[in-house]
Amino acid sequence: MQLLLNNLVEKNRQWTKHGKVANYIPELGKMDSDRLGIVVVDTGRKIYRAGDYQTKLTMQSMSKPIALLLALLDNGEEKVFRKVGKEPTGDPFNSMIKLETLNPSKPLNPMINAGAIAVTSLIKGISKEEKFFRILDLFRKISKNPNLDINMDVYLSEKKTGDRNRSIAYFLRDIGILEGDVEEILDLYFKQCSIEVTCEDIANMGMFLANQGIDRESGKSIAPMHLTQIVKTFMITCGMYDASGEFAINVGIPSKSGVSGGIMCAVPNKMGIGVIGPSLDIKGNSIAGVKLLEDLSEEFKLSIF
Amino acid sequence: MQLLLNNLVEKNRQWTKHGKVANYIPELGKMDSDRLGIVVVDTGRKIYRAGDYQTKLTMQSMSKPIALLLALLDNGEEKVFRKVGKEPTGDPFNSMIKLETLNPSKPLNPMINAGAIAVTSLIKGISKEEKFFRILDLFRKISKNPNLDINMDVYLSEKKTGDRNRSIAYFLRDIGILEGDVEEILDLYFKQCSIEVTCEDIANMGMFLANQGIDRESGKSIAPMHLTQIVKTFMITCGMYDASGEFAINVGIPSKSGVSGGIMCAVPNKMGIGVIGPSLDIKGNSIAGVKLLEDLSEEFKLSIF
Amino acid sequence: MQLLLNNLVEKNRQWTKHGKVANYIPELGKMDSDRLGIVVVDTGRKIYRAGDYQTKLTMQSMSKPIALLLALLDNGEEKVFRKVGKEPTGDPFNSMIKLETLNPSKPLNPMINAGAIAVTSLIKGISKEEKFFRILDLFRKISKNPNLDINMDVYLSEKKTGDRNRSIAYFLRDIGILEGDVEEILDLYFKQCSIEVTCEDIANMGMFLANQGIDRESGKSIAPMHLTQIVKTFMITCGMYDASGEFAINVGIPSKSGVSGGIMCAVPNKMGIGVIGPSLDIKGNSIAGVKLLEDLSEEFKLSIF
Amino acid sequence: MQLLLNNLVEKNRQWTKHGKVANYIPELGKMDSDRLGIVVVDTGRKIYRAGDYQTKLTMQSMSKPIALLLALLDNGEEKVFRKVGKEPTGDPFNSMIKLETLNPSKPLNPMINAGAIAVTSLIKGISKEEKFFRILDLFRKISKNPNLDINMDVYLSEKKTGDRNRSIAYFLRDIGILEGDVEEILDLYFKQCSIEVTCEDIANMGMFLANQGIDRESGKSIAPMHLTQIVKTFMITCGMYDASGEFAINVGIPSKSGVSGGIMCAVPNKMGIGVIGPSLDIKGNSIAGVKLLEDLSEEFKLSIF
Repeated sequence: MQLLLNNLVEKNRQWTKHGKVANYIPELGKMDSDRLGIVVVDTGRKIYRAGDYQTKLTMQSMSKPIALLLALLDNGEEKVFRKVGKEPTGDPFNSMIKLETLNPSKPLNPMINAGAIAVTSLIKGISKEEKFFRILDLFRKISKNPNLDINMDVYLSEKKTGDRNRSIAYFLRDIGILEGDVEEILDLYFKQCSIEVTCEDIANMGMFLANQGIDRESGKSIAPMHLTQIVKTFMITCGMYDASGEFAINVGIPSKSGVSGGIMCAVPNKMGIGVIGPSLDIKGNSIAGVKLLEDLSEEFKLSIF
Repeated sequence: MQLLLNNLVEKNRQWTKHGKVANYIPELGKMDSDRLGIVVVDTGRKIYRAGDYQTKLTMQSMSKPIALLLALLDNGEEKVFRKVGKEPTGDPFNSMIKLETLNPSKPLNPMINAGAIAVTSLIKGISKEEKFFRILDLFRKISKNPNLDINMDVYLSEKKTGDRNRSIAYFLRDIGILEGDVEEILDLYFKQCSIEVTCEDIANMGMFLANQGIDRESGKSIAPMHLTQIVKTFMITCGMYDASGEFAINVGIPSKSGVSGGIMCAVPNKMGIGVIGPSLDIKGNSIAGVKLLEDLSEEFKLSIF
Repeated sequence: MQLLLNNLVEKNRQWTKHGKVANYIPELGKMDSDRLGIVVVDTGRKIYRAGDYQTKLTMQSMSKPIALLLALLDNGEEKVFRKVGKEPTGDPFNSMIKLETLNPSKPLNPMINAGAIAVTSLIKGISKEEKFFRILDLFRKISKNPNLDINMDVYLSEKKTGDRNRSIAYFLRDIGILEGDVEEILDLYFKQCSIEVTCEDIANMGMFLANQGIDRESGKSIAPMHLTQIVKTFMITCGMYDASGEFAINVGIPSKSGVSGGIMCAVPNKMGIGVIGPSLDIKGNSIAGVKLLEDLSEEFKLSIF
Repeated sequence: MQLLLNNLVEKNRQWTKHGKVANYIPELGKMDSDRLGIVVVDTGRKIYRAGDYQTKLTMQSMSKPIALLLALLDNGEEKVFRKVGKEPTGDPFNSMIKLETLNPSKPLNPMINAGAIAVTSLIKGISKEEKFFRILDLFRKISKNPNLDINMDVYLSEKKTGDRNRSIAYFLRDIGILEGDVEEILDLYFKQCSIEVTCEDIANMGMFLANQGIDRESGKSIAPMHLTQIVKTFMITCGMYDASGEFAINVGIPSKSGVSGGIMCAVPNKMGIGVIGPSLDIKGNSIAGVKLLEDLSEEFKLSIF
């Protein structure tokens, strides 16, 4: 496995040249475009690392499944899905069209920005500080890294350039999906997106989901199996922006990407995978990361289909 | 298993009262709304039958995954996916909006009508008769029922009331996705939808997909594993109209429904399931059939997530 | 006036180089792109001709206001506007999106293709021959040209390449806006679009509308004033495809363009104008013709605003 | 004329029962639903008043044409129409769909909220106070009422409930149409909408536009004829929300309505009209006011067509 991983990283690194680092958040634009790294952890507690696995990156949209899990734990399925739907969408991640055309209206799913902002607004806490701490705490627990924290430069950069998300949030408050102070909710959302991790942290989070919410080492359940299945379902149907269908066909692993170039994968009952590759394809997914996962899935028959 | 199936059918039959039989194709409107039946076949060649499993129904949209498989066998992935996309869509099955707004334009996936018509147009044959015979032949082979044939009344009823599909087909020809005679292509499509089956036929087709394209009895491969995985992926991401996401969460089995009230399920490497229940919910899926599958999936942990 | 017209034509002929002759109907693509001509008739029965005013062209979308008038005469306002709306639309002339998103659904106005096809289907006659003859007869009467007839090459070319219009028509029949045989209705529509005219014919038709439905010479009323006002209103709000708003600002005259490069104008109570200039801008309007009308309107203060 | 106006008001007052007072801005909901009043001023300086003409109301969307005029005076046509289009739209006044689907994107016209906010952002002034004062000053000048001012309760109510407008404004800043502080721009917009007037004020503003920008009494030009024609063109093509087409047919007068139940009309070269009738139809126009104008237009042949 280790040798294969090394080979696959080197084979696919060339793809980084065919994409571009995200630039709509200026701070993200500073990442090295030719990086590619991967960490795999399996249920047997083995861990494999290859390529630029030590490069740090922020969670960005990879934080959405985890925030969804916390919102479900806090509010239950019924309340969460009163505010956000369960259906994939053929529209881009920041689209607002369906908010206007559907009646009654709510975001189609928790993986597009509108849905993710609605989900984050449901996280409980008596203050905005406590709310964020509760998010950070869950991230630390399932990544097995008690030192996770925000990358302040990215956070401030997101806050400064977040007009499209502001537009979405005010629309959501107008139609009764969002309650409370919009800037406060967005601040929480920008913070959640700015949590800094490595591939190993991501792989551990993926492992936690793959292992049905049970901590591998202690055997303790952190979240009910059913809720982790919900999260993985969204990762298959809408985890890779509007390339989710193609990824499901070519890789077949519940996964969530972020514009920082990360991909978090959960192979049910088998393994967690963390990938970094900041050079993105036009859909916003790590261009080399996706190719690397295609090879890995084929090699080890990881497709759930 | 047998006892449980009997119980689940009786428990869920009440749901038939909350839906309606499809009426946009007049002939379909004649089905009994209170029917509910199921057949399960597993890899160990065991077969279980419960409820109104002997009621006949037409394939309708359940034919789409099978026609896709044949088109893939005939043309290869590259050619098929040049004409039709791989992404789920939040729009209804007969929507044409994305055909107009996307550029370059093609149907989003092979499970919506636009995509399915494009797929059917790719099936090979030197005459329209041969094309249909090749479709029917594949249906007969994987259902293990050499007597499958068209229900003429349904076929003629579809042909007569198919204006929305005509509108879709002429649009597709206008944008260069469809070639040839539109009425001839639609005739083939209406025939494919009108093939009459029972739950057992459907369960066998599901089994064939679950078993990765290999005939259980002979051990012979009818279609490559990768192509059957493609088909199952579409069944998860867009097999249940615009309730696919919710179904993936609540049931978690690659499935395809039809407006005749049928559902074809493929639990990878485990079982094939055929359900009938003509009373439909507002999304067009068998209302009691979906409930029955939710119970079954939970009872036997059939979710792929 | 005559001198000015000559000057304006020569001044604006250069614009023909910046556009393109329509090519989606092959036969239209054969027109000379550098032509520009105009005829003006006023209420004092004076007539002015300049440039390539003798060049023949087909009515195309310029036929829509006249067909609307006939449908209104045949059916009355209430019945016509039950099938087609009165609102301008920011969408292209062949768009079908609003047909799908509006509920209850009907074409937004009689100037887009969907609305025009619905309007043509309402024209009365005991046979398709009589229906077309009644259209042709009205065209002949208001153009004061008893020799008007179809250009067969254009008609056959339209018929052959009319898939988008077929798609629209079947959609309309599916939602109950259109009744009867679709190909027969489209045939009538293609014929109406293929009536061949000169600028003088167009100017006379514009004069008829400008003169509130009264024949200038005989003083006889061919259509009620109110109906001709309806027609002119549509020409202002949606007569120039999705450049209608800009044209209303820059020219301010109720006008209808066609992809053959013609423009028919009705200056209420003042004059009728016919323009030809086959080189089109990207919205589908005669590029030099629009410029010529801007100059003419400014020179003679023809804006209705 | 006076007698006729009295009769028409009484005849049409019954229509107030078939509509509803706007309630999305709470303060507007307090208006009496059965009011109906009108003031007509003509070029001969005659003035006619009937019904509840003394009832006060706020400008709301009636402020849009006047703010557009000021922005055109401040920036010129080219700069203004780089930020906002000239085309009517079949979508509701607060729709954002086209902002997302058009490329490059800008609001379709200055009468929908997105366009009006963009226009207001272009009004010049060294401070927000000066900007508002310049707007108020123009309103006072053309209404001939130096006492016009804001209704503070309505202003605060708009500010509090303006989430949809906030959503629009942040979207506009995201796509580069809006520059500067969003809340400051919206504050200016809410103030402009909250200017309180009577029918007579509105009629005078309409007269100013009808009279091509020339003050009737002094004969002095306040705005160039061409700019007032631009404004009136928008009033015909998109002044009555998504009922503009129907109103153009039935009334044929450049007009702008507001959700406060007001309608400002400019009959070119003839008269200005101000109407109040807070009970609205489903499109957001004064239900009795529109009926009253239909009668008035027919009686005096006021249609521009």
